[in-house]
Amino acid sequence: MTRYDQLAGIIGERIEQGLYTCGERLPSVRTLSQEHEVSISTVQQAYRVLEERQLIEARPKSGYFVSQQHELAALPAMSRPAQRPVEISQWDLVLKLLRADPEDGMVHLGIGMPDISSPTLRPLMKALSRIALQPDLRGMAYGDICGAPALREQIARLLVDSGNLLSWEDIMITSGCHEALSIAIHALCQPGDIVAVDSPSFHGVTQTLKAFGIKALEIPTDPVTGISLEALELALEQWPIKAIQVTPNCNNPLGYIMPDSHKQALLTLAQGYDTPIIEDDVYGDLAYRYPRPVTIKSLDEDGRVLLCSSFSKTLAPGLRIGWIAPGRYMEQATHMKYISTGATALQPQLAVAEFVRQGGYQKHLRRMRAHYQHNCDIMTGWIKTYFPPETRVSRPQGSFLLWIEMPEHFDSLRLNRQLDQVGVQIAVGPIFSASGKYRHCMRLSYALALTPAIEQAVKTIGNAVKRQLDEVNA
Amino acid sequence: MTRYDQLAGIIGERIEQGLYTCGERLPSVRTLSQEHEVSISTVQQAYRVLEERQLIEARPKSGYFVSQQHELAALPAMSRPAQRPVEISQWDLVLKLLRADPEDGMVHLGIGMPDISSPTLRPLMKALSRIALQPDLRGMAYGDICGAPALREQIARLLVDSGNLLSWEDIMITSGCHEALSIAIHALCQPGDIVAVDSPSFHGVTQTLKAFGIKALEIPTDPVTGISLEALELALEQWPIKAIQVTPNCNNPLGYIMPDSHKQALLTLAQGYDTPIIEDDVYGDLAYRYPRPVTIKSLDEDGRVLLCSSFSKTLAPGLRIGWIAPGRYMEQATHMKYISTGATALQPQLAVAEFVRQGGYQKHLRRMRAHYQHNCDIMTGWIKTYFPPETRVSRPQGSFLLWIEMPEHFDSLRLNRQLDQVGVQIAVGPIFSASGKYRHCMRLSYALALTPAIEQAVKTIGNAVKRQLDEVNA
Repeated sequence: MTRYDQLAGIIGERIEQGLYTCGERLPSVRTLSQEHEVSISTVQQAYRVLEERQLIEARPKSGYFVSQQHELAALPAMSRPAQRPVEISQWDLVLKLLRADPEDGMVHLGIGMPDISSPTLRPLMKALSRIALQPDLRGMAYGDICGAPALREQIARLLVDSGNLLSWEDIMITSGCHEALSIAIHALCQPGDIVAVDSPSFHGVTQTLKAFGIKALEIPTDPVTGISLEALELALEQWPIKAIQVTPNCNNPLGYIMPDSHKQALLTLAQGYDTPIIEDDVYGDLAYRYPRPVTIKSLDEDGRVLLCSSFSKTLAPGLRIGWIAPGRYMEQATHMKYISTGATALQPQLAVAEFVRQGGYQKHLRRMRAHYQHNCDIMTGWIKTYFPPETRVSRPQGSFLLWIEMPEHFDSLRLNRQLDQVGVQIAVGPIFSASGKYRHCMRLSYALALTPAIEQAVKTIGNAVKRQLDEVNA
Repeated sequence: MTRYDQLAGIIGERIEQGLYTCGERLPSVRTLSQEHEVSISTVQQAYRVLEERQLIEARPKSGYFVSQQHELAALPAMSRPAQRPVEISQWDLVLKLLRADPEDGMVHLGIGMPDISSPTLRPLMKALSRIALQPDLRGMAYGDICGAPALREQIARLLVDSGNLLSWEDIMITSGCHEALSIAIHALCQPGDIVAVDSPSFHGVTQTLKAFGIKALEIPTDPVTGISLEALELALEQWPIKAIQVTPNCNNPLGYIMPDSHKQALLTLAQGYDTPIIEDDVYGDLAYRYPRPVTIKSLDEDGRVLLCSSFSKTLAPGLRIGWIAPGRYMEQATHMKYISTGATALQPQLAVAEFVRQGGYQKHLRRMRAHYQHNCDIMTGWIKTYFPPETRVSRPQGSFLLWIEMPEHFDSLRLNRQLDQVGVQIAVGPIFSASGKYRHCMRLSYALALTPAIEQAVKTIGNAVKRQLDEVNA
């Protein structure tokens, strides 16, 4: 990442956080140059990047100003889930989303599918192709149940960026982050147990809890700082919580990055109640800021954090390559891996290891981060333009997912049925809650290139939302 | 498969079954030609195949005789497991076997790894290589949670050979047979439930039961006809059995093919007690006889059989492509698939679909069947030569695994520790029992080309076995 990209990231974040408000004059080029000890031209280039992102405007002879059109929509409210353990529902809605056929001609804004069309993925495909033909038949045998050492070594190196000092032997390869989360939950819990989750939360986790007969305790969550530590502490006092599951970096669906101080406080809390933490970091490498945020795992001193991640969002989900660093639970995790899939497909592991080793991963990440951040600005702008003014929108700090909250009486399931008819797919709010909350919310993806067809789809959603609100208000 | 291969199969089977005994004269070429309505030269070629397999000998001017050296060792006894539900142990022993490093310089006779060196796998590797480079990025996206329709269609076609008339929509792709079995068990059972299993049985199943907190009820099993229906019926009367898990075709580790009448009787029994059957057919396509045996699933009329299989033993385990046809349990199985791995790696699926469609699978199978059958004769001969006379040996009807039973007081764990020192790896008996039975047994694989080094290893095992028996008897 260049210096000006870095600087643009810092200033952009200040604007996002409201430090500079709409229409406000930004520091002069000279001031910034001194403050950050960079050249004048670096500051100019940084401002140009922000102009392209439409975050700021240059006014001749006056300097740079926070863009007028960048007035941010209100953030979603702190979530207020039922504060008692619940049985999990919503499988039918999740299944509907999962089974959507990408070739059905609809505009798909519901699924968490990354953009896999970037030319920076080319070397990975070449590696896959080459490894398939290798005469030593590498990749056709079972391989180590914990995964190819070559890949585990590369992952251990990548994890240094998020503050983790792990050996390759601390890491086990899985079939996607999905299997990692499933292994973590299964290694820690028995049926009837209670797991605390941030809320809204990823449906893969809640559906796994459901399958294992585990109850979810949804904890109120702030759209900027993440899971409420006060509410979590109350819950830990009140209930025999077996594990805490959170997604602190580039949260799905809220997009926040939990501040480091919160991460430390959460870990301290977990230590106090001797509770393990299952940390989902699947979007962490897609943080818009650089260097990327640290994991809770990186602060962990007694092996209580089970870090789960994958290459599904950063590279391509079809690879099905994820991993888990299960800390002190390695033995249980190994058993669960064996009974789950025996081992992970070997050729994709070897190809990804090669791609990472040769620098392809970091190069691809740089491109995707910029792409998603750019798309985030555009999509947020469209929501502001086409949705009614009472709309609340998340401010993603990474990844490619936007959480949209309407007034409480709004019904995203009804909206969804209408959109089905006109070829637009969204992710409805209730799948992000164990108990079917968030009916007034939806999640939209801005991963793909934002074509006029997608703008039209957003407009269609906005109009349908307005109609429903008007009807209810009438 | 050619006519002479087919004929050789029929006669070979008669010899294996003892219809023609050691040293007995076989029917003349002319007689067989008339009986089977084939040409003289077809019979001659069939006899040549059997000569190569050392099953028969030609004696000048006298005709063909059952080979003297083919006097068969005694079969293992009917198994006598504890006839009550047990908690499962043996994970440490299973893990030791799983973690064996194939590159450690040892002779590996313990693992269930197929021979992947055949040139008939070449087109599959080329397909993998080609698909990786396809510009439409097929194989990089998530794909259907139930697997690529193209592959499911090909599997539905292959299943016709085992008597199954299924649609592609009845089939779900999994990450190996392992995930299929895990999904089946998880879809049917709760912790504390009891599952009846044939015994000895595959450790993947018993370890899965263990992980889910399910008890195993091991049913006495005959080394020729499979699970004892009488014992199973008694068990069904006595215990609330949630599912019956069997491997009726080319059983691992016993090698038998359950007679069709037994399959039907087992199904009728399951119907009577309204119990589902989890059928593992992972070795079924490697039956030495042709056409291959039918599955219990093919006789199933009310969707109670969950058929599990994979390409791990027939093609290559590194692909991690298996499948399940879960009958009436499709909905539960889909949920379990989602929480287990989300989806299966897509490129290997597409490559296998292409390979099957172009006839590569059947061609490869023909070659591997002949290869394994040939190796079976040689390995059985070596056991007869190098092991003590009280050794009992299974008579595999397919696959590449031999089950060896020593007198009750023999200890395969002690043997294993000795063999570790001299670079020979075996699979010890107790891992094939939920309760650690079969300590006097072991399983050897004859998948790989049987080199002098392997013969030497078998001799080493035989000598160590003799020494231990002598010590105990002394």
